[in-house]
Amino acid sequence: MARELLLLSTSTTFGTRYLEHAADELRDFLRGVSRVLFVPYALKDRDAYAAKAREGFAGLGFGLDSIHDTLSAAAALEGAEAVFVGGGNTFRLLRTLQENGLVEVFRRRVRDGLRYAGASAGSNMACPTLKTTNDMPIVQPPSFEALGLIGFQINPHYVDADPSSKHMGESRETRIREFHEENDTPVLGLREGAMLRVSGTRVVLRGNAGARLFRKGQPPEEVPAGASLESLIPGA
Amino acid sequence: MARELLLLSTSTTFGTRYLEHAADELRDFLRGVSRVLFVPYALKDRDAYAAKAREGFAGLGFGLDSIHDTLSAAAALEGAEAVFVGGGNTFRLLRTLQENGLVEVFRRRVRDGLRYAGASAGSNMACPTLKTTNDMPIVQPPSFEALGLIGFQINPHYVDADPSSKHMGESRETRIREFHEENDTPVLGLREGAMLRVSGTRVVLRGNAGARLFRKGQPPEEVPAGASLESLIPGA
Repeated sequence: MARELLLLSTSTTFGTRYLEHAADELRDFLRGVSRVLFVPYALKDRDAYAAKAREGFAGLGFGLDSIHDTLSAAAALEGAEAVFVGGGNTFRLLRTLQENGLVEVFRRRVRDGLRYAGASAGSNMACPTLKTTNDMPIVQPPSFEALGLIGFQINPHYVDADPSSKHMGESRETRIREFHEENDTPVLGLREGAMLRVSGTRVVLRGNAGARLFRKGQPPEEVPAGASLESLIPGA
Repeated sequence: MARELLLLSTSTTFGTRYLEHAADELRDFLRGVSRVLFVPYALKDRDAYAAKAREGFAGLGFGLDSIHDTLSAAAALEGAEAVFVGGGNTFRLLRTLQENGLVEVFRRRVRDGLRYAGASAGSNMACPTLKTTNDMPIVQPPSFEALGLIGFQINPHYVDADPSSKHMGESRETRIREFHEENDTPVLGLREGAMLRVSGTRVVLRGNAGARLFRKGQPPEEVPAGASLESLIPGA
């Protein structure tokens, strides 16, 4: 299986600049690439988002084109060496990909070697569905099916329950348990600062924050930084 | 317009029993009613949920039948004096109503005088859409369109932003602003402990927690307990 993915929980951690916490990982992931194709669809103001991403990637030594500035999004994807799919609203992102006929293009190009990096909604997009997003369903995508570049679900911005909270809304863990009342796919709760590096059949947890793995009918499991996920998630 | 609604932000506030914070409002709302029809579809274990609700309503002096225990859900709705739609997962609740053909029955019966009470997901259900839910999209309903018993959106379990938080996920206010990037409908953020009493064209904020009103292109507005909403939201 040819696939090269870098999936960040968040684009910005507390107290650091945009992508700063993932700078080394991104540089390593994009070695040999000169320009990155940016996908800003998760935010409303695509121009402002592309400008921010352009500045961030320039600081890492990469040029950036935004897919919304190209004559044909599909053609831009066909010609790209690497994409970075930015965070924002996951429903808006998926709807835009589906309505522009880009889902199949993404799948085929990633199989053919296109490097796929994403943060938050952009990481969720690599999963089988968007069903583990934290976002508000502000628009309705035709389908909840996402790109399916990996075989399990990511929950970005994963937060552990706060035992001192007086809020009666569901904790993140409760929400993921509800997901498993209706679905079988394992869910990896990626804490902010955590990221996944996928290379072919290898899946490794990077960053410094660790993750929490939820499998249907089993107690949640702590996954330390550096762990291999393919041993934990069959068919990852 | 004949409609009688009582919409709670939550079924349980911190440190109180199930429905205890709304006991007086519920008793007043259900005056003259002997039995309540309970809708447990937002949770997976309907039997357990119905048992909990039956105990809660017994404490208020009302009998309770659960719609999932009836031979025909539609027929049960036709014969009911009052319904209580329990909280849980909003996507699951809406999908069940849609797939069982109950949306139109609810609309017609509420127009004809059926008293509709709900909490959390059950309150969101009374809105035009589910687009302001906080829940995880664990199942895909055929449509995001909900019952439309009121003309604006409720965000249940509304929480003010925590200025000390180091979490980089979106605050509730940010999520509602994103909603208004794509939609025009006003959103009432109902804090836990707040509830709405709708009687014909009258809409009053009850409970003790207050609410926050978000209108597209305008700064958010604090709504104190006791305020009339129909003056704030045209066509409420």
